[in-house]
Amino acid sequence: MAAQKPGLFIVLEGGEGVGKSTNMAFIQQYLQQQQITFTASREPGGTPFAEQIRELILAKQEESVDATAELLLVFAARAQHLAQKIQPTLAAGQWLVCDRFTDATYAYQGGGRQLSKQLIAELEQMVQGDLRPDKVIVLDAPIEVGRARAANRAELDRLESEQDAFHQRVRAAYLERAAARPDHYAVIDATQPLVQVQEDISSVLDQLIQQWRAA
Amino acid sequence: MAAQKPGLFIVLEGGEGVGKSTNMAFIQQYLQQQQITFTASREPGGTPFAEQIRELILAKQEESVDATAELLLVFAARAQHLAQKIQPTLAAGQWLVCDRFTDATYAYQGGGRQLSKQLIAELEQMVQGDLRPDKVIVLDAPIEVGRARAANRAELDRLESEQDAFHQRVRAAYLERAAARPDHYAVIDATQPLVQVQEDISSVLDQLIQQWRAA
Repeated sequence: MAAQKPGLFIVLEGGEGVGKSTNMAFIQQYLQQQQITFTASREPGGTPFAEQIRELILAKQEESVDATAELLLVFAARAQHLAQKIQPTLAAGQWLVCDRFTDATYAYQGGGRQLSKQLIAELEQMVQGDLRPDKVIVLDAPIEVGRARAANRAELDRLESEQDAFHQRVRAAYLERAAARPDHYAVIDATQPLVQVQEDISSVLDQLIQQWRAA
Repeated sequence: MAAQKPGLFIVLEGGEGVGKSTNMAFIQQYLQQQQITFTASREPGGTPFAEQIRELILAKQEESVDATAELLLVFAARAQHLAQKIQPTLAAGQWLVCDRFTDATYAYQGGGRQLSKQLIAELEQMVQGDLRPDKVIVLDAPIEVGRARAANRAELDRLESEQDAFHQRVRAAYLERAAARPDHYAVIDATQPLVQVQEDISSVLDQLIQQWRAA
C-alpha cells in the first residue's frame, strides 16, 4: 500500500480586526465545496489542554507578564497542538486550516514585544522540527482600520489591548516575513471589499488544491 | 554607596516523599534563628501567574500531555518567577530559598520523561542566562521509602502518579548531577532519623552563612 499523501497545512494570519474570523469561515466553506477533507483549528489552542494554556496567555493578569514566559507558553500550547492534532491530521491525509500559527509568534512576541527573532527561531526548531505551513495567508490592513473594527468587540484581551506602536510592529513583522519568502505567503489587502478579499483567497486555495491533487 | 551584596539562592530538591516540606520548614526556621533575611518560594510557581501555570502542569488531563509542552510550561513558569520574584529578591540582598528549581527539570523531564539534556540546557540558558543556585540540597532516599511516604497523601498529582521506573530515573538524574559538581550540591541521606537529616542541613547552611557574611 502506498503511503498516504499528507494533507496541506494552511494558516490564516493578520493583526486585530482584519477580518480573520469571517475569512476563516469562508475558507472552510470553500474547501468543503471543493470536497477537500480538512480540520479547522486555531492557535494558541486547538486541543482542550492547549486551550487552557491559551486562556492563561490571553487573560489579563494582576502582575506584569514576562515576555519570555509568554513566548514559552505560546510554544508549549503549540507543542501540544502539533502532537495531538496537527501532525495526526496531516498524516491522515486531511488538510489542517489554522487561525494563526508561528508567524503570529514572530509578529506578536517578536515584532510586538521585541523579543529576539533568533530566540523564536530556536524554539520553532525545538518544537516543530522541519514542519512549516504549506501556505500562510496574511490579511493585511493599516492598523487604524483594524483597530476601529476590533474596538466594536465587547472586551479586548491582553494582547489586543496593547498600544498602537505594538500593533504597528506586529503588522510590519508580518509584512517583512512575507516579503522574505513570497512563494510561501499570500498577502491579501484586507481593506478591499469583502467579495474581492474572498476572490483573492479562493484563487490562492484553487492553486493549492490543483497542485495537491496533481502531486 | 556600595552595591548591595546579593543574597544567596538555595534550592531544596528530591523525589516524592523524601521529606521536602518538613525540611523546607526547618530551613526557614534555621535561617530565621541565624538572622538571615530571606524569602521562601517554590517551583513550579512562586508568583500568582506562575502558580496558574503550576496548576496546568500538575492537574490530571483527559488528553496525553506532550513531554515538550510540559517542559516549556515549566520554563514559562520559571521565567515569570525569575523576573517577578527571584531576581528582585536576590538583588535586594535577601536570600531566596526555593522548593525545587531547574535540577527538578533535569530530574523529572530529563530523567523521568527522558527528554534530551541538551534541550533542557538550551532552555535553561534562554531563561536563566548565567543565573544558577548557589547551593542545591538534595534529599535522597530509595524510591520505595519515598513512595511509601507519599502514598499516605490524599491524592497524587500527574507527576507523582508516574510509575516506579519513572521515579527511579528521577532519583538517578539527581544523583548524577550532584556527582558531577559536588561543590555545588549537598546530597543528604533522607533515610536517616529526622534529627540527623536536619543536623546535616544545618551544617550546610552554617557554611554558606559564614562564607556569605565574610564576602
